Amino acid sequence: MQIPKVIERLIESFEKLPGIGPKTAQRLTFYLLHVPEEELAVFATNLISLKKETVLCSVCKNVAETDPCSICIDPGRDKNMIMVVEQPLDTLAIEKSGKYKGVYHVLHGAINPLENIGPEEIFVNELLKRVKNMDTESLEIILATNPTMEGEATAMYISKQLKSQNANLKVTRLGVGIPTGADIEYADETTINQAIEGRREF
Amino acid sequence: MQIPKVIERLIESFEKLPGIGPKTAQRLTFYLLHVPEEELAVFATNLISLKKETVLCSVCKNVAETDPCSICIDPGRDKNMIMVVEQPLDTLAIEKSGKYKGVYHVLHGAINPLENIGPEEIFVNELLKRVKNMDTESLEIILATNPTMEGEATAMYISKQLKSQNANLKVTRLGVGIPTGADIEYADETTINQAIEGRREF
Repeated sequence: MQIPKVIERLIESFEKLPGIGPKTAQRLTFYLLHVPEEELAVFATNLISLKKETVLCSVCKNVAETDPCSICIDPGRDKNMIMVVEQPLDTLAIEKSGKYKGVYHVLHGAINPLENIGPEEIFVNELLKRVKNMDTESLEIILATNPTMEGEATAMYISKQLKSQNANLKVTRLGVGIPTGADIEYADETTINQAIEGRREF
Repeated sequence: MQIPKVIERLIESFEKLPGIGPKTAQRLTFYLLHVPEEELAVFATNLISLKKETVLCSVCKNVAETDPCSICIDPGRDKNMIMVVEQPLDTLAIEKSGKYKGVYHVLHGAINPLENIGPEEIFVNELLKRVKNMDTESLEIILATNPTMEGEATAMYISKQLKSQNANLKVTRLGVGIPTGADIEYADETTINQAIEGRREF
């Protein structure tokens, strides 16, 4: 049996997405057969416009509609607080929490020697340059890379580089510990140890 | 914080797909930001071509490139055996098993009163008409709708209609029982009862 080539091709397109296996790709494709043609056109237009209508902000490297992005030009944002994150999605999560009023620097990845991603492959040098041109008196760099092996290594590397540029620069790391709503019973040892180390006066 | 509109729109497009929630839609969209523009164009073209390059076979209602489809015009296929399935994906699964040499009839759904899907909404009448015009002497209709409430109801309805058209028509239903590789320990009661009823001489 020949399945129509365009169906095969669309299944392939879906399979390339992360976390989508062959079965899901099939299911999505056959689902779209029942969707009105106009809706497919909208989906297609959104895909094509995705990169055409977005730019990387030249200051913070976040994905944005304008350059500089809306956060970097917002006068209400504290330019003396730069939070360094791995991905644009991380800024979304932090913005949703609503408390942070500083600006960002998006690395677009983390140092990962196993996958040949060194500091040159992510926007580390851009951060160093950005900080170099600033008055470091009241500046704080918050390292908010993920608490994974790669994220920790990236934070260590960046911290070292920043300190070698200016030993007095305030560099902080996001607090670690047991997340709200979690159960201590199921927390892993590293998290528990870090939570004990990071305990606060009540 | 403003997330770029095109990103929001693409997230919405993904969210409309079955089994894709807001978080996954976000993840897929931000993943695509790192994909080359040509690949996005290919994805978009496949979406737009999906319905343009496929037709419903006028005989069996399967999704195909030609009308009639490659199975319906294949002289090696037994036209006296029609397997009735709910979805085009079902024919794929049966073709992969490699044993079936008859033809198909795709209903594009199952009778589901809760969702207002009656026999008129799926290709039941087309099946009745198709069978009416055939020599029913050696004809066999295999009802291969899913063994769910809706699938069983659909099979019952179709069987009744076919028999009222021609009482001598051979109508069969796919065998039910414990699937290969499954564990009897975890099989539900209905399946076990059906497997006992459907036991065969060894």
